[in-house]
Amino acid sequence: MPLPADACAEGEAAAASRKTEPDFHLTDSASVHPADIAAHLENLSLEGQVSALSRMSTEDAAEVLVELDESVAVDVLESLDRDMAAQIIAEMSPDDAVDVLDELEDEHRDALLDKLDREDSEELRTLLNFDPDTAGGVMNTEIILLETHFTVDEAIAHIRSEMADKESPYYAYVVDSQHILMGVLSLRDLMLAKPGTVVGEAVAGQNVISVTHDTEQREVASLLSHYNFLAMPVVDTEGHLMGLVTYDDIMDIMHDEASADMLGMVGADPEESVDTPWVESVRKRLPWLFVNMLNSTLSAFVVYMFEGSIAQMATLAVLMPMVANQAGNTGQQALAVMIRQLATDRFDQKKAWMAVLREGKIGMVTGLVMALTAFAGAGFFTGHMGMGAVMGGALLCDMLLGAVAGGSIPLVFRALGRDPAQASSIFLTTITDGAGFFIFLGMASLFLL
Amino acid sequence: MPLPADACAEGEAAAASRKTEPDFHLTDSASVHPADIAAHLENLSLEGQVSALSRMSTEDAAEVLVELDESVAVDVLESLDRDMAAQIIAEMSPDDAVDVLDELEDEHRDALLDKLDREDSEELRTLLNFDPDTAGGVMNTEIILLETHFTVDEAIAHIRSEMADKESPYYAYVVDSQHILMGVLSLRDLMLAKPGTVVGEAVAGQNVISVTHDTEQREVASLLSHYNFLAMPVVDTEGHLMGLVTYDDIMDIMHDEASADMLGMVGADPEESVDTPWVESVRKRLPWLFVNMLNSTLSAFVVYMFEGSIAQMATLAVLMPMVANQAGNTGQQALAVMIRQLATDRFDQKKAWMAVLREGKIGMVTGLVMALTAFAGAGFFTGHMGMGAVMGGALLCDMLLGAVAGGSIPLVFRALGRDPAQASSIFLTTITDGAGFFIFLGMASLFLL
Repeated sequence: MPLPADACAEGEAAAASRKTEPDFHLTDSASVHPADIAAHLENLSLEGQVSALSRMSTEDAAEVLVELDESVAVDVLESLDRDMAAQIIAEMSPDDAVDVLDELEDEHRDALLDKLDREDSEELRTLLNFDPDTAGGVMNTEIILLETHFTVDEAIAHIRSEMADKESPYYAYVVDSQHILMGVLSLRDLMLAKPGTVVGEAVAGQNVISVTHDTEQREVASLLSHYNFLAMPVVDTEGHLMGLVTYDDIMDIMHDEASADMLGMVGADPEESVDTPWVESVRKRLPWLFVNMLNSTLSAFVVYMFEGSIAQMATLAVLMPMVANQAGNTGQQALAVMIRQLATDRFDQKKAWMAVLREGKIGMVTGLVMALTAFAGAGFFTGHMGMGAVMGGALLCDMLLGAVAGGSIPLVFRALGRDPAQASSIFLTTITDGAGFFIFLGMASLFLL
Repeated sequence: MPLPADACAEGEAAAASRKTEPDFHLTDSASVHPADIAAHLENLSLEGQVSALSRMSTEDAAEVLVELDESVAVDVLESLDRDMAAQIIAEMSPDDAVDVLDELEDEHRDALLDKLDREDSEELRTLLNFDPDTAGGVMNTEIILLETHFTVDEAIAHIRSEMADKESPYYAYVVDSQHILMGVLSLRDLMLAKPGTVVGEAVAGQNVISVTHDTEQREVASLLSHYNFLAMPVVDTEGHLMGLVTYDDIMDIMHDEASADMLGMVGADPEESVDTPWVESVRKRLPWLFVNMLNSTLSAFVVYMFEGSIAQMATLAVLMPMVANQAGNTGQQALAVMIRQLATDRFDQKKAWMAVLREGKIGMVTGLVMALTAFAGAGFFTGHMGMGAVMGGALLCDMLLGAVAGGSIPLVFRALGRDPAQASSIFLTTITDGAGFFIFLGMASLFLL
């Protein structure tokens, strides 16, 4: 638990005291952060969670619900009294509400939406229509808008009157009479501007950076991080401002996307976590295990071609997996470096192939070191220097191949329009196993038998 | 390149026009974002980068330098005129300056620090003493401080006068006369507070969340994301406020940490990228390749024990790698899920072992499906149903073992105080290879020969 010890202790003490003092309020000055309450609730049973949330004000309950793991939040919402659930949804910011509603059963979701006032329910229904993986699916629609004719002082007054209702008033967006996005001003810009400045002039000629509603959230994350923005405006194809994606949504996405590559690489679902139902995981992993089986059948066929050689010299079967395993690991190291690189921006074609060349050099040198080690080792243990030479030669060739293949596979996948990480490790193993067995057994058949 | 097409085009047009109009200024209203200029500069030669930066104002150059890849920034800084380099360093925020200075040769760094005014150079020297992986190493020391007796209006006036010099005035920190951190107020809190409120009272009883200077940056990132804070205050062991870690430093760290696990898992350095000098990569990867070699020697020894069986029946050598490979992939899927989970917070001992149980179930069911497939396949191709039965049985046992081992290895590593990801894939392969060969060859020797 990465909390400072005292914060943690205070959080637990407050949570504990709440059990005996049901009228404890989050808005008290000695407040506990909603994220800590959520962490505490996650250790309770569903009944405990529901009863704790029922005793909070709807504002507080909404704040805590946002911080719960999505699967827990959905369970709680389904078990709560429907009127209470609808009131909590109404208190949540639209982007957070949509995240949870998206996971509910259709029938339940419609029932909750029907209980909201018309404006809120229409807004949420619109947002629910966006693909959850796009900017439209994660955007927040509560924006502070400034008209071009406002002075800086009018703008500040307007923001002060509006900000209590808006999630994140870091920036105010300037739109023209057609609601087209003209520019962005931070609170800081406004506070530092000369009184009397008109906001339309302050943003004149500004090169506003925005995304369209169908931009993938991974790309939004990468842009937000590239520019160090706190929020990214989302526009439709005509440039009308639709909403904002804020840094807090993006922090979670960035973290997930980066570790998703690790799961994809070995043929697991990038969204899988220990909370995924195990039957679901079986369903998602099995197809890749079949691919892996098919691929290893190819390697088995290579070995089968040399069945005769192995029958003559069983030591070959002893050393053969070592060659393939070592090349496989070399290739996986190259694979991991390239997948990470492709997940960041600014990576052009030329640099990509330079990176493959770099892996080639690494494979050559590490292969040479391992080949000499294997030559000495295999020669010593089998007492047969020819075997050592074949083992070393095969290791060098296969490790070089593994490094180049590991570096290239993500690039080839990307060129084919596929996810660079998806099951890349499985295809790499096919290459290093197949080639490793073929080179080692082939050289042994030629030179030793 | 994940930029919206028009932003990109404008950026490049502006960059191109700058070449012919050397007095183009970044502070013009039609400005290009420093991050885009940096991306453009990274495609130039070192001479081009140095000459472009020399033509900018030191403020602009400082903004661009922060956005460059660290290795590029270091090269540029070493090639720039030293006086100019020192002026740029002076313009950078201290946390960014320290990041670059940390990478310079000692002699060069000292020369630059000597050119700064005394206050700046002392501050930077202090910051350079912190471990770069801790809160102290990434913190920013330019903070807006409020004294407890300020009224809200005095606080706003104070912030407006100070904010031009500070990096990120999202929050103002309230300290007592001893400089002990008492509370935090956001600009929003201040703007919404009743005029005349005294800040000391506004924060009374606040449960301030802070980290100490020696907190690992990974933990700071996790806390910042947990609480959705824009900045985390850093205090010394007595609670004196020392600095702030802001969200923009943390976004980069979070992204790196998550993908670092993927590299660590296969025995590459978690910091490695395609820009790492290849000789450096060889040095970092070789030790793990030796460990892998040693581990695969163990598996080879298992096969060696059954050399006689293989000499009698060479088909065993054909099918043996398939068993190990399939179990290895199953284990890696479990490994990736567990490593991702350990990288997020809120993961207790009980939940961890429930997760291993979950992997066991998945291994059992996928193992059963694959065993039946292998039974049919091996029986059909070898025309020997006994071989199919041995293959299927070995596959089921080894895949179950692989799933449980993949789920447990990260937990065991963590319990031993090691990084759950580091080289976990190598140790997993040892288990699945060794056990796979043993079970398959052992069962074959018992039942088929």
